[in-house]
Amino acid sequence: MRSRRWQSKMKRLVPLAALALALPALAADYPPTPAEIVAAAPAAEWTAIDPADLLVMDLAPDRDGNARRVVIQLMPAPFSLGWVENIRKLAKVQWWDGTAIYRVQDNYVVQWGALAEEKVLPNGLNISPEAAYLLPLPEASEIGWLLPHGDAEIGLARDHYAFAVAFRGGWPIGGDNGNLWPLHCYGMVGVARGIENTGTGADLYAVIGHAPRQLDRNIALVGRVIEGIEHLSSLPRGKGELGFYEDDEAEKRVPILSVRLGPEASGLPGFEYLSTDSASFAAYAHARANRQDAFYKVPAGGADICNVPVPIRRIAG
Amino acid sequence: MRSRRWQSKMKRLVPLAALALALPALAADYPPTPAEIVAAAPAAEWTAIDPADLLVMDLAPDRDGNARRVVIQLMPAPFSLGWVENIRKLAKVQWWDGTAIYRVQDNYVVQWGALAEEKVLPNGLNISPEAAYLLPLPEASEIGWLLPHGDAEIGLARDHYAFAVAFRGGWPIGGDNGNLWPLHCYGMVGVARGIENTGTGADLYAVIGHAPRQLDRNIALVGRVIEGIEHLSSLPRGKGELGFYEDDEAEKRVPILSVRLGPEASGLPGFEYLSTDSASFAAYAHARANRQDAFYKVPAGGADICNVPVPIRRIAG
Repeated sequence: MRSRRWQSKMKRLVPLAALALALPALAADYPPTPAEIVAAAPAAEWTAIDPADLLVMDLAPDRDGNARRVVIQLMPAPFSLGWVENIRKLAKVQWWDGTAIYRVQDNYVVQWGALAEEKVLPNGLNISPEAAYLLPLPEASEIGWLLPHGDAEIGLARDHYAFAVAFRGGWPIGGDNGNLWPLHCYGMVGVARGIENTGTGADLYAVIGHAPRQLDRNIALVGRVIEGIEHLSSLPRGKGELGFYEDDEAEKRVPILSVRLGPEASGLPGFEYLSTDSASFAAYAHARANRQDAFYKVPAGGADICNVPVPIRRIAG
Repeated sequence: MRSRRWQSKMKRLVPLAALALALPALAADYPPTPAEIVAAAPAAEWTAIDPADLLVMDLAPDRDGNARRVVIQLMPAPFSLGWVENIRKLAKVQWWDGTAIYRVQDNYVVQWGALAEEKVLPNGLNISPEAAYLLPLPEASEIGWLLPHGDAEIGLARDHYAFAVAFRGGWPIGGDNGNLWPLHCYGMVGVARGIENTGTGADLYAVIGHAPRQLDRNIALVGRVIEGIEHLSSLPRGKGELGFYEDDEAEKRVPILSVRLGPEASGLPGFEYLSTDSASFAAYAHARANRQDAFYKVPAGGADICNVPVPIRRIAG
């Protein structure tokens, strides 16, 4: 009874988006929603993520004893920046085990590693120069490679922070006439640093707010959270400057039990993303930019690239 | 000793932004940062927020007994949509007292009210039509009123979702050749609804993720959180569809102790915002779009309007 009442309320007041889910009878009257397009994409349009590109971070259980696992996809070639190799080395020597999350700044980032501790780094880490934030275009001076093709109509080209942006190889990428770089969208993971150098990768952050695109080309991006972002984004914010946990709130620093590369992580499912070159992805992006159903009356006619998250899911079975 | 070591670590690895705070000696070599510009703005450029426009929501204390207060500024004239009057009525009859937060969807919204309960609404609430999402331009067909003035150089005009956007009267506003509407940036508060009508204002949501601008003109915005957003954004995400808390996680629904208009709320400080017509705001927006200091090497040369939050602070004393 309670549940039925709840359900009937849900139908009356289905809040924001995804109305099509609640009202399948109306679906035929509207173009397919982004979620429907993704659900209908053929298997051939999904690309498996190499488990070797996964970084699996197990946090200490929450206060109710629930496990907290965060799965990060490291950027593969040709977008992989130099810091990714350091991260692989750090994971292999289990360097992060026993470190902690020490910074949570609202509408910005969650950061972890060993900032608050004396923890010696392993040998063999390379410090890349700032120039390494940029990658050469696959074909020299061929910005056309990046310029939107099917994306043009949703206006992705009108970016505020880059000459051109587009999805390539499953990632949001920006560029100009000579270089490419990855973009700071929600969930992206980057390398914390000071000013002396570009950082090793031992301290990492994940974006948990509105895309801080001003960081593009100023700091290294190495991947994105593909599962468990809520274990980072829902952490209590730090009271200190920049969201650092202060000494009197040290109990908020979530211990990191372990960080492993995919092949060494236990119980890891497979993951796949909707190929950003596929027809379904183009239709999905178009639908994200032109919502129209029983809920959305006025399609925007455009979307910024960080408002078109690449669909990622567990491989069934 | 611990603290000094921490401090020295902080200097070596000051992560992301606000480096100028840690390195005052270098400040002279760079243009002022956004934070420095705001701190230096003369008192005359700050505008007091009318306490009558504040909505004060006190949540039940957290598990450690800490008080949780969320302060919302309701949109004032000329941007105030019809739903704001309903919200004032609901607050006056203390309608929200005893209701709860019942939905937290990652990178999207937190929602509260009485969706899960049978709670009769007071008489006298008006249901505005969808047309009321739009406000007429102050001067008919004068989009020039909205077109960026000083904002032009930071490229705010290149918006994906509206013909033009700009800050007016302290708010991010979009428009076309006949109408204005407020924008769904981080922290904005809107009216949850179903499809039968535009909602009363009894169920509200706050944006806790990347700006969902596709909701502009599709749902009513009524204000923004100006203090305490972390009490919403850090709540555990719901397991249900759209982030609703399911029956087996009912203990996550945070009880709302009371919601009062500013003049009826106890212990409420005054607030003020940096006037968006001021010289300091123009300089602040320019600096947000052109970060350049010891940390930021490559200024973006632009910013999207939701990445330029309007500075708001408590009035000193």
